[in-house]
Amino acid sequence: MSFKLTILGCSSATPTLYRHSSAQILNVNERLFLIDCGEGAQTQMRKFKIKFQRIDNIFISHLHGDHYLGLMGLLFTFHLLGRTKEIHIYSDPGLKKIIDMQIEISKANLLYPLIFHSIDSAKSKVIYNDDIITVRTIHMDHRIPTVGFLFTEKPKERKIRKEVIEKMQIPVKEYEKIKKGSDFTDARGKLYKNDELTISGPKPVSYACCSDTGYTESYIPLIKGADMLYHEATFMQDKLKNAREKFHCTSIDAATIALKAGVKQLMIGHYSARYNDLNPLLEEAKTVFENTILADEGVVYNI
Amino acid sequence: MSFKLTILGCSSATPTLYRHSSAQILNVNERLFLIDCGEGAQTQMRKFKIKFQRIDNIFISHLHGDHYLGLMGLLFTFHLLGRTKEIHIYSDPGLKKIIDMQIEISKANLLYPLIFHSIDSAKSKVIYNDDIITVRTIHMDHRIPTVGFLFTEKPKERKIRKEVIEKMQIPVKEYEKIKKGSDFTDARGKLYKNDELTISGPKPVSYACCSDTGYTESYIPLIKGADMLYHEATFMQDKLKNAREKFHCTSIDAATIALKAGVKQLMIGHYSARYNDLNPLLEEAKTVFENTILADEGVVYNI
Repeated sequence: MSFKLTILGCSSATPTLYRHSSAQILNVNERLFLIDCGEGAQTQMRKFKIKFQRIDNIFISHLHGDHYLGLMGLLFTFHLLGRTKEIHIYSDPGLKKIIDMQIEISKANLLYPLIFHSIDSAKSKVIYNDDIITVRTIHMDHRIPTVGFLFTEKPKERKIRKEVIEKMQIPVKEYEKIKKGSDFTDARGKLYKNDELTISGPKPVSYACCSDTGYTESYIPLIKGADMLYHEATFMQDKLKNAREKFHCTSIDAATIALKAGVKQLMIGHYSARYNDLNPLLEEAKTVFENTILADEGVVYNI
Repeated sequence: MSFKLTILGCSSATPTLYRHSSAQILNVNERLFLIDCGEGAQTQMRKFKIKFQRIDNIFISHLHGDHYLGLMGLLFTFHLLGRTKEIHIYSDPGLKKIIDMQIEISKANLLYPLIFHSIDSAKSKVIYNDDIITVRTIHMDHRIPTVGFLFTEKPKERKIRKEVIEKMQIPVKEYEKIKKGSDFTDARGKLYKNDELTISGPKPVSYACCSDTGYTESYIPLIKGADMLYHEATFMQDKLKNAREKFHCTSIDAATIALKAGVKQLMIGHYSARYNDLNPLLEEAKTVFENTILADEGVVYNI
């Protein structure tokens, strides 16, 4: 399965000349999921040649402007380009009011069905589920209701232990059931438990996106062992007071979460506009969690 | 008086990789007026080094997304950068609802007063007035309530006819009153009418901004003789049917208005995303009105 992440925007609060407001595209086997949609996201997608009409699901973490103000423009663009395929939006119910009001006032009559899924940020829930992936919310600690998102590949089929199964001459038509976990009873009535016949399949890939949030360890169990954790690191540690006051994290906070959750890789982002050079944030995070990288707009990361 | 126009965005409907949604900055003697505020306007202002905290008045022509979707982001940025000076917004009352709802949902507590002035698009009215300029709405013919804006310099003082006034030995302290139009009575009681003493001052500069609109000659009297007319020219003449259906203009329409209104210069803009090369639109307009130029983002035009 391919899990590719493209960062469209990694700035916090205000866009800068070089960094845009929060938005990401997660491409799972060519299904495109948009995570947050700050101002300018549609232009970033054009720039990075992302076929944005293929987005069917949009996840908005919370209703601070830097995470959703590019959405209306994108929804109008979908319409103007003749989209008829439905689009699903997952967010705080306030966003539905904001969208509905603007559609009404502009007298737009969208060509496509817009299906809104309200998120209750109070607890973690599976909000999306298809044949290859599930998306679960992660409760964040921010000034207004906010969630992160955990994208997890569906558990893979178990692998048949070839040497065992061949020796036993199990008919090929039984293989699919066994891969899915069934036991097997042979012609003489002897039962073989599934774990005699198979080994577990490869570990499902997972991507956790945590922005915006103050420091909290509450969601560590949920993101345990994720292949990639995107975590906000708005400030460096010398601005810890600012971070605490504003319900944001420092690069040390983000790295501490990554360490405690035992993730494979940490990507920091949501940088304050005050930082031109981001390397000090990276170096600081690495003192706690070595496998840290900087979110960089337009780069495609294979998870 | 200096009248400088910077185009921040000249695309219609959807932004493209090279053109942004509608937005303009008019700089009148270093007072900055923002006309429309499509998505990305704040980033364009950073790019063109416009000191956007000096904007005090924002005029929004109508509530199609490409003319206002950059406004919320700019308003939040003003706040985040610590603005305390009031900001005035002039638009259809629907915009106030859109702004208020988003401020409420994001729990923003703006540091500055936001003063909203509702525009009744049905008739042309003076909506702004200071010591150097007036702004008047222009009724446009579009699918939803829409206005253009006419910026006119205040009438300049009359010029004293030096040869007359010196011969008569009028005291210098009387000059200011005479320049403002007063008559003068000398020591012997003889009255001199003002037009014996003065000639009219230079013609006030004016800038008319007409976007979006279908073709109508209704506002020609209002914009007569303007120094610069920005007029939408969404399509070329071969798309006249599209233009009429969508209440937009062709380049020939825009040039016809310019010709009939006897303006000094026409700037066309609000180009459909289908045009990569804009020169055919320019050439077409010039067949009707020679002194036409293309709106180009970032260029500063002296009016």
